[in-house]
Amino acid sequence: MIQQTQFSLPPFRRGFHLITADVLREAPPLPAAGLFHLFIQHTSAALAVNENADPSVRVDFEQVFNQLVPEDLPFLTHTIEGPDDMPAHIKAALIGTSLTLPVRAGQLALGTWQGIYLCEFRNSARPRTLVVTVYS
Amino acid sequence: MIQQTQFSLPPFRRGFHLITADVLREAPPLPAAGLFHLFIQHTSAALAVNENADPSVRVDFEQVFNQLVPEDLPFLTHTIEGPDDMPAHIKAALIGTSLTLPVRAGQLALGTWQGIYLCEFRNSARPRTLVVTVYS
Amino acid sequence: MIQQTQFSLPPFRRGFHLITADVLREAPPLPAAGLFHLFIQHTSAALAVNENADPSVRVDFEQVFNQLVPEDLPFLTHTIEGPDDMPAHIKAALIGTSLTLPVRAGQLALGTWQGIYLCEFRNSARPRTLVVTVYS
Repeated sequence: MIQQTQFSLPPFRRGFHLITADVLREAPPLPAAGLFHLFIQHTSAALAVNENADPSVRVDFEQVFNQLVPEDLPFLTHTIEGPDDMPAHIKAALIGTSLTLPVRAGQLALGTWQGIYLCEFRNSARPRTLVVTVYS
Repeated sequence: MIQQTQFSLPPFRRGFHLITADVLREAPPLPAAGLFHLFIQHTSAALAVNENADPSVRVDFEQVFNQLVPEDLPFLTHTIEGPDDMPAHIKAALIGTSLTLPVRAGQLALGTWQGIYLCEFRNSARPRTLVVTVYS
Repeated sequence: MIQQTQFSLPPFRRGFHLITADVLREAPPLPAAGLFHLFIQHTSAALAVNENADPSVRVDFEQVFNQLVPEDLPFLTHTIEGPDDMPAHIKAALIGTSLTLPVRAGQLALGTWQGIYLCEFRNSARPRTLVVTVYS
């Protein structure tokens, strides 16, 4: 059985944001057992599962990713949308645009310290559209 | 319901290539709603979803990944297949070997600017074998 | 049809480890065709598919990832759990916490040279809990 919903999240500022509750609010009811798939329909934002407790982790994520993929690389050619655009595409490819998570006992089977991150890589925030598909 | 097909793509030169149309030509018919899974059976190529419009994005991807994982790292030990081989394994792990995409209204539910990339990390192109699995 | 199992692997030392056999030992029987989903319930370890033959590949993986995400970045703020902790979160996000693999003819449809890696990014090994979900 498949249940699928498309929804938008309001703009987030550039950085890493915990959206587990936002996503569950929009998702279909979760089955006893199954899989939960989340997809972001954009190429300069991404979805990750990572630490859900200490906000300093998400601050460090932003800094490390900026060092990993700097904005001033002299050889970049896709620069028309600003210096943050091409690095945003690279970061999105490094993190990925979808998550597949197990569902157990009617809940996402996340570990104690895991949450869902929206990784926003653009300076100018836009709403982001996501598709959630639940299999049972 | 599951439909599954294995197919090969002819060799691509080293770089990032838009293969959405090639993949859909080989895939089973898409259902009204479901999930589309694509897997590449190799360890030095990868699959991503990213920008489908401006070819300069894919040129920059190749340059940034070469800077991120250089070929002249002095500590590498797995060098028997050439200087591009071990970096290719690393790049493949950073990008990933599979994609799961939502299917809606009989189509891949990609965003306007999203397409499927084959990321070829070897200098000497070989055909690449993929497996597509469609769930409905 | 869904079959799902949760299991733990004993502690691995920091590094990249081939766990294909360990995972298959714990997994439900594989169907004729389907998908195999593996999820790790932790934020400082990850799952990858990569080269299964030459152990030197996995040694190089550890070295390259340590260079990619160094432990001495002066701007890190999430340092309370030690210098390996925040880099471990970043590495886990780069590699990813789940794998989805096709099943064909009752087996994982891996390429000849592909195996499942557990990527352990912490110095102090702990058991790691995984959830496997098989769809048919």
